[in-house]
Amino acid sequence: MIHRFDPTHFHTTIGSHEPVLAVADGDTIETWTIDAGGRDRNLEQVHPGGNPQTGPFHVEGAKPGDTLEVTFDRLWPNRDEGFSHGLAAPHVLDPDFATRMPYDEGHHDLWDLDLERGTARIRKPPGGLEKLGDLPFEPMLGCFGVAPAGGQAISTATSGEHGGNMDYRGFREGVTVQLPVAVDGALLHVGDGHARQGDGEIVGTGIEVSFDVTVTVRVLRGKTIRWPRIDGAEYVMAVGNARPLDQAVQHATTELMRMLDEDYGLSYRAGSALLGQCIEYDVGNVFDPAYTVVAKLAREFLP
Amino acid sequence: MIHRFDPTHFHTTIGSHEPVLAVADGDTIETWTIDAGGRDRNLEQVHPGGNPQTGPFHVEGAKPGDTLEVTFDRLWPNRDEGFSHGLAAPHVLDPDFATRMPYDEGHHDLWDLDLERGTARIRKPPGGLEKLGDLPFEPMLGCFGVAPAGGQAISTATSGEHGGNMDYRGFREGVTVQLPVAVDGALLHVGDGHARQGDGEIVGTGIEVSFDVTVTVRVLRGKTIRWPRIDGAEYVMAVGNARPLDQAVQHATTELMRMLDEDYGLSYRAGSALLGQCIEYDVGNVFDPAYTVVAKLAREFLP
Amino acid sequence: MIHRFDPTHFHTTIGSHEPVLAVADGDTIETWTIDAGGRDRNLEQVHPGGNPQTGPFHVEGAKPGDTLEVTFDRLWPNRDEGFSHGLAAPHVLDPDFATRMPYDEGHHDLWDLDLERGTARIRKPPGGLEKLGDLPFEPMLGCFGVAPAGGQAISTATSGEHGGNMDYRGFREGVTVQLPVAVDGALLHVGDGHARQGDGEIVGTGIEVSFDVTVTVRVLRGKTIRWPRIDGAEYVMAVGNARPLDQAVQHATTELMRMLDEDYGLSYRAGSALLGQCIEYDVGNVFDPAYTVVAKLAREFLP
Amino acid sequence: MIHRFDPTHFHTTIGSHEPVLAVADGDTIETWTIDAGGRDRNLEQVHPGGNPQTGPFHVEGAKPGDTLEVTFDRLWPNRDEGFSHGLAAPHVLDPDFATRMPYDEGHHDLWDLDLERGTARIRKPPGGLEKLGDLPFEPMLGCFGVAPAGGQAISTATSGEHGGNMDYRGFREGVTVQLPVAVDGALLHVGDGHARQGDGEIVGTGIEVSFDVTVTVRVLRGKTIRWPRIDGAEYVMAVGNARPLDQAVQHATTELMRMLDEDYGLSYRAGSALLGQCIEYDVGNVFDPAYTVVAKLAREFLP
Repeated sequence: MIHRFDPTHFHTTIGSHEPVLAVADGDTIETWTIDAGGRDRNLEQVHPGGNPQTGPFHVEGAKPGDTLEVTFDRLWPNRDEGFSHGLAAPHVLDPDFATRMPYDEGHHDLWDLDLERGTARIRKPPGGLEKLGDLPFEPMLGCFGVAPAGGQAISTATSGEHGGNMDYRGFREGVTVQLPVAVDGALLHVGDGHARQGDGEIVGTGIEVSFDVTVTVRVLRGKTIRWPRIDGAEYVMAVGNARPLDQAVQHATTELMRMLDEDYGLSYRAGSALLGQCIEYDVGNVFDPAYTVVAKLAREFLP
Repeated sequence: MIHRFDPTHFHTTIGSHEPVLAVADGDTIETWTIDAGGRDRNLEQVHPGGNPQTGPFHVEGAKPGDTLEVTFDRLWPNRDEGFSHGLAAPHVLDPDFATRMPYDEGHHDLWDLDLERGTARIRKPPGGLEKLGDLPFEPMLGCFGVAPAGGQAISTATSGEHGGNMDYRGFREGVTVQLPVAVDGALLHVGDGHARQGDGEIVGTGIEVSFDVTVTVRVLRGKTIRWPRIDGAEYVMAVGNARPLDQAVQHATTELMRMLDEDYGLSYRAGSALLGQCIEYDVGNVFDPAYTVVAKLAREFLP
Repeated sequence: MIHRFDPTHFHTTIGSHEPVLAVADGDTIETWTIDAGGRDRNLEQVHPGGNPQTGPFHVEGAKPGDTLEVTFDRLWPNRDEGFSHGLAAPHVLDPDFATRMPYDEGHHDLWDLDLERGTARIRKPPGGLEKLGDLPFEPMLGCFGVAPAGGQAISTATSGEHGGNMDYRGFREGVTVQLPVAVDGALLHVGDGHARQGDGEIVGTGIEVSFDVTVTVRVLRGKTIRWPRIDGAEYVMAVGNARPLDQAVQHATTELMRMLDEDYGLSYRAGSALLGQCIEYDVGNVFDPAYTVVAKLAREFLP
Repeated sequence: MIHRFDPTHFHTTIGSHEPVLAVADGDTIETWTIDAGGRDRNLEQVHPGGNPQTGPFHVEGAKPGDTLEVTFDRLWPNRDEGFSHGLAAPHVLDPDFATRMPYDEGHHDLWDLDLERGTARIRKPPGGLEKLGDLPFEPMLGCFGVAPAGGQAISTATSGEHGGNMDYRGFREGVTVQLPVAVDGALLHVGDGHARQGDGEIVGTGIEVSFDVTVTVRVLRGKTIRWPRIDGAEYVMAVGNARPLDQAVQHATTELMRMLDEDYGLSYRAGSALLGQCIEYDVGNVFDPAYTVVAKLAREFLP
């Protein structure tokens, strides 16, 4: 079944909020999200900023200990203007170098978005970028997740085992993400669309814009995961969210070892021998309170 | 001019050791390296382990403040057996998970290398990997660098501004690396060949093997860099080596910002706007005392 | 006014929960807390574990942007048995060393508490500790705080600007802590008493026990702080909570610089010159998801 | 035997340099050191800066695997002027806060030292510190150590298992430090005296000054340690040097666990139970390339 949902309010925490819609296992939801700053497709401020989320959606039958699969059927900007911050954040630069950056000038950029062609053009290029061409869209959701355990309501500024503000470029159209269900109904939240983003989200934003979002949800009953995963056509992947980045690497690597064991029958010894020579890491974000690392293995190497 | 050099001794520090050969700017050196454990092409132990280096090579005319360009013309294993450690290291795993790994069993693997086809096959696959096919070579140098400043002799276990044990998959055949010259003659060291390696070197090794190595050196006089760089056909790249990984990100991002400024005329403001939406990060190693991160930008985005 | 409050339910998040009692600025609350595992003075399990909190207490007149002062008038165990974990956690040890610790044996210790003399004695000393004498109480609250901003409900496993599970030995009887008010009424939570604890809480517990707690609250109207502070008789202090410990140092040092500026008229330049030669750091915890560092300056050095 | 040694040259690496003096086990050396910037008691620049070291001293009979005990019999400034940097370093502050500090103004301070009374007075106090009184000396050596293994020559900017630039306030007169011998003769280097320093060395210096230094050396044959230790009258202590601070905590805690096992017969289980409730941590430095943490236990708790 396909649900069409128009949000009327938003959340800047991911938690056990009142569901806005209940859907069945296998259903599809067509909805939209406002941008990270709280503005909608008409550039109207409809909520305070901070990655406000659409939802939560209650998925019938999802229980703590299950896994929720979320397929991003469609992720696309729904207005022709995006914005980004204009300077690399001080904490991604050498500390002494950062003290010489012009932060007091408050730089930010606007981007003209061609929704047909799927490209972004910086409106007022800073000196040296006058000839920068159109950048192709790589639409992604910066922040989404399910309600965490124990009554927590976790700020959409950060991330954890429940998902959240991971700002990972790989969460794009066509991808199916697995999330660990911690409460009845899972309570899926989605928001923070980026027309495009570099690895790390080093300026603190992608090209931020309101989005049309279509997702399909499925419940994997009795399957328990600890961190978000992707069991994809090209890669199997596991996500870790933490600071420092070293700890995110630990979470992601461990979860991928578990995934190979649980889903593909590889002991930790066998998983080690394989990953040692074949693992790849992606850097999600190095800007948010928790950083994000993705450990992945090309499916071709799976025995 | 092409030099053929057969090493008779090796170094496990990178420092101002007596040069084994002096070459001119633009010369090519054909030589070989022993494996990380100190064994040569005949599997004979010719030096204690720890990434023993061939060299150093004195490059005439290189002065402190210059940059040495090193092109890896040829990197290829020269024997048919490699080895790797068999378990992910405890410091790349969640600490509590690591305490349940069978480290006391001392696992390691041997690999049969087909030098013609360029493939590696695990000799005694652990359970579950029996059907693992041939893994294609991706030959790389794990450890190389130039003598550091101030009379330091830095262990080949670790890395720094001078290069060293970066264990980054991108240091492969065809690539030209830039290194910051700190002493007269630069004093290039090379070693630690890997037939292949996953990101991060999470088991503590790639497929370790002795190598045939051909490099060409060029001096960029008056060009000063701080960290290793690659000004390549597809990407411009900068390396950062440090722990935690967060600091390696800071070094690499800062050096890439400097590179865009110095070599491509982009102010930090312009570089930020571009990198924010287009930067990519590679994880070199997360095993060694200093971790390695590479920040890179696809050349297509350079104005 | 003195309020006597007996809790009937507890919280394992710190958030905007329904207040259990409203008190006036300057009032005193006599209450009690259950231990970190959820057991009361009779060793009865009255709540699931995880540092369950008594409260929250609404302090009349406290507004976002104010500061709440909390004086720990009395902190004392109220039963004669405490418990602790029996092994240093793997993440406070060298990773390879940790893999050789006997975690699979599930060690923990019980302690006999002499409430009159204020001493703890380990009930079944592990070999080598048979002659360990009585350890003096240093009663402290491991976890307390005020409701955070933005509707967050933060797990009592961790800490942040609002306080939380800081596990710092300095939060002991007689101390007055300042907390940043983020919601109307501040909503003070208290719990997780430790009869005693080493720096860092490296085994993951202090000597955990239910407590009698008496606190007095005061509102500093219009005074805005960012992190918990202590403006004490011997020291002025500021707390930072984060991982890695380096970031906790940054938060604590910055907040102490701000405190010297705002409360004592020292510019950042003057504060730097003074702190450079006189600052002290305490390590709160290195066990919880966020680590805790306290930066402090002896009052004798304040001009 | 007491040796009087006047240095004529200095080293800015700690390594296997030519010894300047050979002494016997148990001998005492009276010598002096120049300040971190390379100036002697007459304020003459006698060596480039960077914590230049006096030595190395060869201690007869010390072999790899032994431990060298160094007692700081006397540490005292030998001129009446010291200097310090005037601003907290950007990497010890919140990154965004650091960008607002006046680093471009190049602040530093001079201190008038009263060698009789043992006090320091800031010469031109920044606004707000006009009434800052005399600060008592707490003389310490910021940088000292023995030659590391494997032919390394490690910059005196940083530290490691061999000691080095630890900048820990606890390395003061009267203290006996244990260092792990890695080469024949141990090769002791000493330098970088501070009349006084705050925890962390957050401005990047203590009050830097040339020193008179008297040390007595003893060889503990067959006793092998991994990190510097102090087996003192009030505390047993172990040092860890690394970044991030979390890793320094791991090294120090692990070494203290080993010390309790090896020297005091406490198993890791018993050591854990004791340290869990009684360990203390000191922060050495959070400025240098490697940070320093000291784990310690009051001797009164040793069974």
